[in-house]
Amino acid sequence: MRDVAIIGASMTQFGQRDAWIRELLAEAGDACLDDAGVEPSALDHLYVSNMASGEFEGMTGVPNALAHDLGALGAYTQRVDQTSSSGGAGIYAAWQSIASGASDATLLVGGEKMTHKTTAESTDVIASLTHPAEYKHGVTLPSFAGLTARHYLERFDAPRESLAKVAVKNHENGTRNPHAQFQKEVDLDTVMESPIVADPLRLYDFCPITDGSAALMLVPADDAESYVDSADDYAVISGVAGATDTHVVHERDDPTVMGGVVESGERAFDMAGLEPDDVDVAELHDMFTILEFLQMEGLGFAEHGKAWERVEAGETTMDGDLPINTSGGLKSKGHPLGASGVAQGVEIYEQIVGEAGPRQVDADVALACNVGGFGNCVITTILEAAA
Amino acid sequence: MRDVAIIGASMTQFGQRDAWIRELLAEAGDACLDDAGVEPSALDHLYVSNMASGEFEGMTGVPNALAHDLGALGAYTQRVDQTSSSGGAGIYAAWQSIASGASDATLLVGGEKMTHKTTAESTDVIASLTHPAEYKHGVTLPSFAGLTARHYLERFDAPRESLAKVAVKNHENGTRNPHAQFQKEVDLDTVMESPIVADPLRLYDFCPITDGSAALMLVPADDAESYVDSADDYAVISGVAGATDTHVVHERDDPTVMGGVVESGERAFDMAGLEPDDVDVAELHDMFTILEFLQMEGLGFAEHGKAWERVEAGETTMDGDLPINTSGGLKSKGHPLGASGVAQGVEIYEQIVGEAGPRQVDADVALACNVGGFGNCVITTILEAAA
Repeated sequence: MRDVAIIGASMTQFGQRDAWIRELLAEAGDACLDDAGVEPSALDHLYVSNMASGEFEGMTGVPNALAHDLGALGAYTQRVDQTSSSGGAGIYAAWQSIASGASDATLLVGGEKMTHKTTAESTDVIASLTHPAEYKHGVTLPSFAGLTARHYLERFDAPRESLAKVAVKNHENGTRNPHAQFQKEVDLDTVMESPIVADPLRLYDFCPITDGSAALMLVPADDAESYVDSADDYAVISGVAGATDTHVVHERDDPTVMGGVVESGERAFDMAGLEPDDVDVAELHDMFTILEFLQMEGLGFAEHGKAWERVEAGETTMDGDLPINTSGGLKSKGHPLGASGVAQGVEIYEQIVGEAGPRQVDADVALACNVGGFGNCVITTILEAAA
Repeated sequence: MRDVAIIGASMTQFGQRDAWIRELLAEAGDACLDDAGVEPSALDHLYVSNMASGEFEGMTGVPNALAHDLGALGAYTQRVDQTSSSGGAGIYAAWQSIASGASDATLLVGGEKMTHKTTAESTDVIASLTHPAEYKHGVTLPSFAGLTARHYLERFDAPRESLAKVAVKNHENGTRNPHAQFQKEVDLDTVMESPIVADPLRLYDFCPITDGSAALMLVPADDAESYVDSADDYAVISGVAGATDTHVVHERDDPTVMGGVVESGERAFDMAGLEPDDVDVAELHDMFTILEFLQMEGLGFAEHGKAWERVEAGETTMDGDLPINTSGGLKSKGHPLGASGVAQGVEIYEQIVGEAGPRQVDADVALACNVGGFGNCVITTILEAAA
C-alpha cells in the first residue's frame, strides 16, 4: 500500500446554476488541474462522483464526456455512486487507485445538477434510495430526520434551540465561503419561527437543493513534492473507510445511533492511528441539523446524547475547541449530491494546507464524514498535514 | 500492491426474468458466496456493477439493499458505473480494493433488469451515454455499428458472411451454456436473411435485451488457498486496465480502430508481462458482431483488417487456436448491461479453474474485454492459472 496525498482542490460556485452537469464537472476539473499544476494528459484515472445524472438530465456516461472535455483521453474513467455519499465514496475509490499502484495521478470530480427540477421531483429521485417498504409509505429522508429529532430531543432532554444553533453556526460560517449557496447569517428566532417541514424540524433545519461541483487531485505521497513547493502544500490521507447500516431504517436498534458512522469512523481512526481528540476541524454531513449531533456522537466527538451540550456551549464554532463545518456545511454551502463529499474533502484539504482564507483555523488533523441515505452508507476520511 | 485472486463465481439464468434488480443481485451474490465458501459477514467490500437501476426501475441505493439482502451489513458498499462496461469496471474496482489493502474479501455483483421496458425505451436509456450532438440526431449505438460494419467490409474486402459467422459461432457456443438466454444454434442463412436493423447488420448481428446478474469473489492471492482446496481452484488477476476513447464517435481518426481497446489491452498485457499469443481463450464484447473483429484486432489477436480471415478459417471456434466467446458471448448469452463484464469474468475464471463443463477448453491464460458505449471506455482483464 502506498501513502496517498492530495495536492490540489477546487469547487465551483454552489447554488442555482445555469449550467448542465457536464459543464459543472469540467469547471471544477479544469480548476483543480490548474491548482495542482497537473496536465490533463498526465491523468491515469478520472473518477466522477455523481448519483443521478441519468434521472436528473437523461445523460449517462458523464465520466467519458468529462475525459473528452478536460482533454484527458486515454485516462481510465468511472462513475462512483453511493447516493448522497458518492463524494466520500469517490475519495475512497481515488485513494484505492493510488494506493494499489493502478494510478499515479487520479482526478476526482463530484457534481450534481438538480435545481432545474422541482423540489418534489428532486426529493423523489433522492427517495428512490430508500427501502421500497418505507418509500411506498412516503417515509422520505426529511421525515426520518423529523422522527429522529423528536426522539433525540425528548430522550436526552435537549432544547429545540440546540438544533437551531447548528443552523445558525453553519450559516455564519457560510458567510465566509464565497462558493456557498447562502452567504447570509440567520438568527435563532428566524430558524425557530421558520415553516415546519417535518415536526419538530423547520425549514432552516434542512439543506437546500443545489447545483455544483468540486474536485480533488490525488498522487502518491512520495511524488507529492514534485508537484508542490513544500510539505506545507499538500495533505496526506491517513485514514479512509466506509461502512453500511440497515437498508430499512426502522430496523435499527437505536434511532439515535448511525452504525455506519460509528464503524466507518472507528476504521478510519484505526487506519490513521489517531483518536477523536486528535481532530482539529471536521466537516460533518448536516443534510439535516439533527445529523450533526448523530455524527458528533458516532465519531466520538461527544458522548451519546451529549452533542447538543457541546453545541450549546459554543465548542463547535470557528473559535471553539472543535470547529465543525467551517465551510458552512451542506446547510449553507448547499448539497449537490455527488459533489458534497468531495467538497467536504476540499474544505479539510484547504484547512490543512492553510488555504481556507477567512475560514482558516489551526489544523494538523481534519476529518470529513459523508452520509449516504439516512446513514445507509457512510465514508469517513482523515487528512493530516505532511509537514 | 498485493496480488489478487478470484476464488468463486456465479451467474443467474440470463433472459427475460420475473425478478427485480435486487432479487437478481441477491441471487448471484448468494450463489457466489456459496461457491467460494465465504460467509457474508466476512465481506469487507461489496461492489455492484449496474448502469441504470434508477432509470429502469426507479430504484437507487441498490448496493446498500444488497448488503441488507445478503446479510453483509457493515461491509463497505458502492455502485460502479461505466455504462455497458460497468462489469469490467467492477472487476477493476474490486481488484484495487484488494491490491490496495483496503479489503481482504470483496464480492462483486453485476446486474441489470431491462426486459420490462420496451426495446425502444431500453435503447433510449443506453443511448443517453452518447454525445448529445450525436444522440439528438438519432445516432444510437446500433447505427454506429452499421456504419462501422459497412466501412470495414468495403475497406478490407471482407465477405458479409464473415460477420454472420461470428453470430453462428457464438450461438453454437451458447448451446453449451445453461445460463445463456438463447441456447439454440442458428445457421448462416438464418443470420443472412434476418431483418435488416442497421444496414448491413441484421437482427442476428445484435445481442438481445436481457435481465441477469453475475458475481465474482476476490481475495488476496496469498490468502486464496485458505479458502480453496488447491492452487487448481483459483485464478490470479495478472492484468487489468482501462482506457477511454473520444466521447464523440465521429471524431475518431479511424472508425475501425477502438483506441480504448488498444490502450487497455496494452496496459493489461504490460501488467501481466504477457503477449497476445499467450492467451488461450477470450471473451470479447460482441454486442454487435462487428465489435468482435475490432477487439480481435485492437488486442493483437489479428492484424488490422484481418480478423475476418481468422473467423473464416474457424480459428476462433471451440476447437480453434483461440476460442472466442466460449460462453456464447453477449450475442447468445445476453447482455444485461452491468452484468455482462462480470459474466465475462465468470467465464474466463471457470475456464481457468476447469469448471466450464461442456464449454471447457485447455486454458492457462484467459482474457476478457468489456466495452462501454461504442468503445468510449474499455476494460481488459487477464486471468492466469495459479498452479
